[in-house]
Amino acid sequence: MSIARPMPSTTNETRPSLLASLLAPIEQELAAVSQRLQTELRHPDPFIDELAQHSFRLGGKRLRPALLLLTAQAVGEVNDSHRVLAAVVEMIHTATLVHDDVLDEADIRRHESTVNARWNNQTSVLLGDYLFTHAFYLASTLETTFGCRAIGRATNIVCEGELKQTAASGNFALGRETYFEIIEAKTAALCACCCQLGAHYSGASGRVTESLKSYGNHLGIAFQIADDLLDLEGEEHVTGKSLGTDLGNRKMTLPLIHLRDQLNQDQQQQLCQLIEQPTADNFAKLLDWLNESGSLQHARTVAEDHIDRAVAQLTDLPTTPALKAMQQIAQFVTRRNH
Amino acid sequence: MSIARPMPSTTNETRPSLLASLLAPIEQELAAVSQRLQTELRHPDPFIDELAQHSFRLGGKRLRPALLLLTAQAVGEVNDSHRVLAAVVEMIHTATLVHDDVLDEADIRRHESTVNARWNNQTSVLLGDYLFTHAFYLASTLETTFGCRAIGRATNIVCEGELKQTAASGNFALGRETYFEIIEAKTAALCACCCQLGAHYSGASGRVTESLKSYGNHLGIAFQIADDLLDLEGEEHVTGKSLGTDLGNRKMTLPLIHLRDQLNQDQQQQLCQLIEQPTADNFAKLLDWLNESGSLQHARTVAEDHIDRAVAQLTDLPTTPALKAMQQIAQFVTRRNH
Repeated sequence: MSIARPMPSTTNETRPSLLASLLAPIEQELAAVSQRLQTELRHPDPFIDELAQHSFRLGGKRLRPALLLLTAQAVGEVNDSHRVLAAVVEMIHTATLVHDDVLDEADIRRHESTVNARWNNQTSVLLGDYLFTHAFYLASTLETTFGCRAIGRATNIVCEGELKQTAASGNFALGRETYFEIIEAKTAALCACCCQLGAHYSGASGRVTESLKSYGNHLGIAFQIADDLLDLEGEEHVTGKSLGTDLGNRKMTLPLIHLRDQLNQDQQQQLCQLIEQPTADNFAKLLDWLNESGSLQHARTVAEDHIDRAVAQLTDLPTTPALKAMQQIAQFVTRRNH
Repeated sequence: MSIARPMPSTTNETRPSLLASLLAPIEQELAAVSQRLQTELRHPDPFIDELAQHSFRLGGKRLRPALLLLTAQAVGEVNDSHRVLAAVVEMIHTATLVHDDVLDEADIRRHESTVNARWNNQTSVLLGDYLFTHAFYLASTLETTFGCRAIGRATNIVCEGELKQTAASGNFALGRETYFEIIEAKTAALCACCCQLGAHYSGASGRVTESLKSYGNHLGIAFQIADDLLDLEGEEHVTGKSLGTDLGNRKMTLPLIHLRDQLNQDQQQQLCQLIEQPTADNFAKLLDWLNESGSLQHARTVAEDHIDRAVAQLTDLPTTPALKAMQQIAQFVTRRNH
């Protein structure tokens, strides 16, 4: 369920080129991965082919393959294992998006109809499974089990995070610590895995690999907080997806938790009512309240703190265009508007 | 959607011990795998733990791990790789069951409430994903990528089969060949994979491994035809799951395809109406028609033919209790009533 939002009075400019410009060091590699992904997802059955090609278009930022390839380049050289694994992580991310859209009952994603909106929930469930299993198969074509193991573990943690989030739905009293556990699992684990794989398959030491995994982890946490903020503050035509879905799904995010923790019992009751009846009017009231209480700013500050911690993991790497891009991407994730 | 069926006038005896007696040669191994599966699925989060333990109870016959272990024993000795992989294939099978129950909107499975009935569809989707990813992680703990690769490929084929089945829903004109393609993918591929893994990890030659994979494939095809027959002819309290779900989902199965292909256009129209309005009355009429036309018998004959082809793959194996069990299980799948 998404919220009826007032139309914006001015059209904000989208900035698809900002991230793209940061990815210049791996532009060609990323294009090759996109090509590989699209080829991998071709299928002789016309229905499966159409679905898989549609799911390919639901991706977009390609943040995860970018992290994997940049880490590879920051440590050494991109090789064919990296290219396979970059396709794998994007396929897995797409699988989780397709299943998320069933869970959120979302209609739009990246300006495209979601699979459940265009076909139905059943097709979404199966398409997600198809993408998951295809990704696991692809990972297993590498020489060792390292990639399969890292990806298997990370995706399992992603699912744990999503299950915990489901259990927390409608829990107005959700603890701050549990919120962080959830986002670290559902979002940061896969980002961390991407950086771990990039480093490992470039021959990085265990210590450097762990640092880069930690970079991915903090970046992922910041990314998710920024995403939760966009769900409140973003504009649907810029983000390219349904907004207010968190409220619609009665999901407590950091700004709401921060506001709640400042309030007395009566005020908490009021807040709870606004959250439970997310009409356009209540949504506007809620945004004002979150703004005045400094809760939106608080979430931004926490996200930026994680960005600082991410960047601090990069100090031992040689100065290269890839390193610079990793530093800039960290800044980008909290400042993006889509 | 399931069909309102008349209650049976007499209570048929269930036969849970028939398969169990066939599995005597691997009884202890199978118990160890069950134990391992249950331990693997323990989780510190109480919600995830409850869900995972519930899903464990949705399994039942443990046919897939049994095939893997028996094949292992028929060729050589059961080792720890087999035990891990037996837990993996059961976990994957359970994941597909959990997702199937979302697709079929089924309420009961193995006399237990399905996850979607007891919790909701969202939880089912995530639990299925959790089981899939856990299984893939577990497979990746083995030394080589062989297991990951075989399982990744087989589960991907299972998903293809399920997607093709979704595309075929409501297609009264579904071709016989497409029906076989679907069941070979959605059911037989994983059975074939179990036998392949059992043989490979016992050190079988490529030729023997291929023969045993083919045994699993034919057995799986027969199993699915028998399952489709049970959905028409079975009794809910014996099979332990909702019946008539195929009709409810407008799914053409072999008996219906056989009947349709004998009919003139007017009769086909009548058949189509019965299928599209599966009331208890229409269901009874349909069953009579399927019976009189020999269509139920035809499906049974085809299933038995696949059983013969399965058993023919076993001729080169030494005479052992495991071989005997594999021959008897082949007979069991077409004669079971649950």
